[in-house]
Amino acid sequence: MKITKPTLVIDEQKARKNIETMIAKANANEISLRPHFKTHQSALIAKWYWDAGIRKATVSSVEMATYFANAGWMDITIAFPYNPLEYEEIKQLASRIQLNVLIESEDALTHLNTHINVAIGYFLKIDVGTHRTGIDPRNEELIKTLSHSNNDLHRFQGVLAHAGHSYQTLDKAGAQAIFDDSMDKLNRIKSFIGDPNMIISYGDTPTCSLLDSFPELDELRPGNFLFYDLMQHHFGVCKTSDIAVSMVCPVVSIHPERGEAVIYGGGVHFSKEVITLSDGKTYGAVVSLTESGWSSEPIANLARISQEHGIIQGTDEYIGSLKIGDLVGILPVHSCLTANLQPYYVSLDGRKIEKFNRSNL
Amino acid sequence: MKITKPTLVIDEQKARKNIETMIAKANANEISLRPHFKTHQSALIAKWYWDAGIRKATVSSVEMATYFANAGWMDITIAFPYNPLEYEEIKQLASRIQLNVLIESEDALTHLNTHINVAIGYFLKIDVGTHRTGIDPRNEELIKTLSHSNNDLHRFQGVLAHAGHSYQTLDKAGAQAIFDDSMDKLNRIKSFIGDPNMIISYGDTPTCSLLDSFPELDELRPGNFLFYDLMQHHFGVCKTSDIAVSMVCPVVSIHPERGEAVIYGGGVHFSKEVITLSDGKTYGAVVSLTESGWSSEPIANLARISQEHGIIQGTDEYIGSLKIGDLVGILPVHSCLTANLQPYYVSLDGRKIEKFNRSNL
Repeated sequence: MKITKPTLVIDEQKARKNIETMIAKANANEISLRPHFKTHQSALIAKWYWDAGIRKATVSSVEMATYFANAGWMDITIAFPYNPLEYEEIKQLASRIQLNVLIESEDALTHLNTHINVAIGYFLKIDVGTHRTGIDPRNEELIKTLSHSNNDLHRFQGVLAHAGHSYQTLDKAGAQAIFDDSMDKLNRIKSFIGDPNMIISYGDTPTCSLLDSFPELDELRPGNFLFYDLMQHHFGVCKTSDIAVSMVCPVVSIHPERGEAVIYGGGVHFSKEVITLSDGKTYGAVVSLTESGWSSEPIANLARISQEHGIIQGTDEYIGSLKIGDLVGILPVHSCLTANLQPYYVSLDGRKIEKFNRSNL
Repeated sequence: MKITKPTLVIDEQKARKNIETMIAKANANEISLRPHFKTHQSALIAKWYWDAGIRKATVSSVEMATYFANAGWMDITIAFPYNPLEYEEIKQLASRIQLNVLIESEDALTHLNTHINVAIGYFLKIDVGTHRTGIDPRNEELIKTLSHSNNDLHRFQGVLAHAGHSYQTLDKAGAQAIFDDSMDKLNRIKSFIGDPNMIISYGDTPTCSLLDSFPELDELRPGNFLFYDLMQHHFGVCKTSDIAVSMVCPVVSIHPERGEAVIYGGGVHFSKEVITLSDGKTYGAVVSLTESGWSSEPIANLARISQEHGIIQGTDEYIGSLKIGDLVGILPVHSCLTANLQPYYVSLDGRKIEKFNRSNL
């Protein structure tokens, strides 16, 4: 299809390679990979995982779980605290697939026990240091209490953690330190619960990309690595050539006097996620489009955005080379939030790739 | 309808009052109001303007223009630089409604002249100081050249400006200074073009809300004032009681030990627009829900958000009063971007309010 407005283009080969790399890592460690599908939110892209042998998925909402269940995924973890208000949808879903939810309080487990009368699995969400959600790992009493269900239909699956504090500039040693600290906490829990079949589920994109060895872990749940993005590159987690998505945007206005060009592409396309550097902000990296996709080396900066406008800053030579109606590629700062905003994606060969949209519900 | 997940609730009475206030101001000045519909993106809400006598609309994309044309709006300005790549959609649209586009270069006008062989209006976009898009008002030669079309079907309508630099903490005097400076520039253009019928179109929400008198202006184009938001309140432009939208979100996790509760509601619902204050960041203001809507006084702060999570910080008493499954209201930082992310809105009496979604195209 012809691109006339901001369109997120996916390099399927790069994405499939990112999948293969992560699967090889999981296999070498003999652990399960349950990738997070919030990054792509597409049944078509999920099939790339399916083709590579993956049968388990992670999602971040009940709606998304329903979408992927409808697409044939039969083993899904909703990696978000159990929302009592959605118990009817959760019950529906659990009655037809293997569903896991996250519990972190007695109130939540009581609600689950009294409202979900079908088979369901649950993980205890543990806070390994991000301080967003989860039980304090030192709260032995609560963890022990919640690891036993009073309902035979509800299976305690294990503990699940997300090291959100690994989303920073990291080298391998830094990632290892966070991983070791988390595993100390999670292994201690496993030992005081005393259940050898208990699963330890862990794994964000920085950790899973920077490290190779994951001893004592049972399940990895990264998501972003499928596409990667400028933020992950900024953190030292990937190369720009690993980034599998690029927003293709029309140039609509050129201001050589201040070294700027304006694209059709703003906050409603990219999200307002930003990287703040010592010399300014970046909302995306401009790359040149090629016959086979895009060149990985950034050639200009997406320095400001508003609702529909994006302002590119570049050299006089680069800005001088542009004319209105040209298309440029932009590597996004945060591929998950950017992907979330798209009505659909487009492949390098111009095929439309359908995805989940909350508006289609 | 029962709210079980993040849902933007609209107080129709407040929104209609905001419309009436702005119309009264336009009428007192004997100028036209062409409100920006990017704020709500809803044909149903547009009808509130229609009911109040408004027949002209501003939008920020060709897609949005098509959506509102389909809903019966026959006079629309696309307040975004003319995108040559969308000329076919623009031509289609201009053949059935009174459409205006923005021109700011000879390349754009030449493209319009050679590709759009139907009646269309165009404004010259003038940069009055925001330095995003638009022609430098001192560029008399270019402005004069572009003010004459070589195509009889194309009507030069006038000049259009957006003072994006009024989006800052402002008092009436500050807003007046920006307005006066802009009007000096635009009136100078009107005089050297020498066309007495030329329209001067201007007017962002801060300017239109803080000032009462708009001499020599022909058309006002604010949008945000319909809903207002925390950013406008922070700028000193509205009261929190004027804010006509509130995101209603379920509480899913409570952490009294750090004075925090977690809601289902994150970047995919609010956008990542943020206000940075000396004592921290705010992604929204928590208000208590009442029988008739919500109380306007913020009672806690939405201090952090990730993709689906929002972290509320409040007093021990407030956090202690919450339990999972409760609903809380959040006044958003930027109502336009928040509204853009919704699949639909809900009225205070539980009716679903349909809106434009790029995914429905």
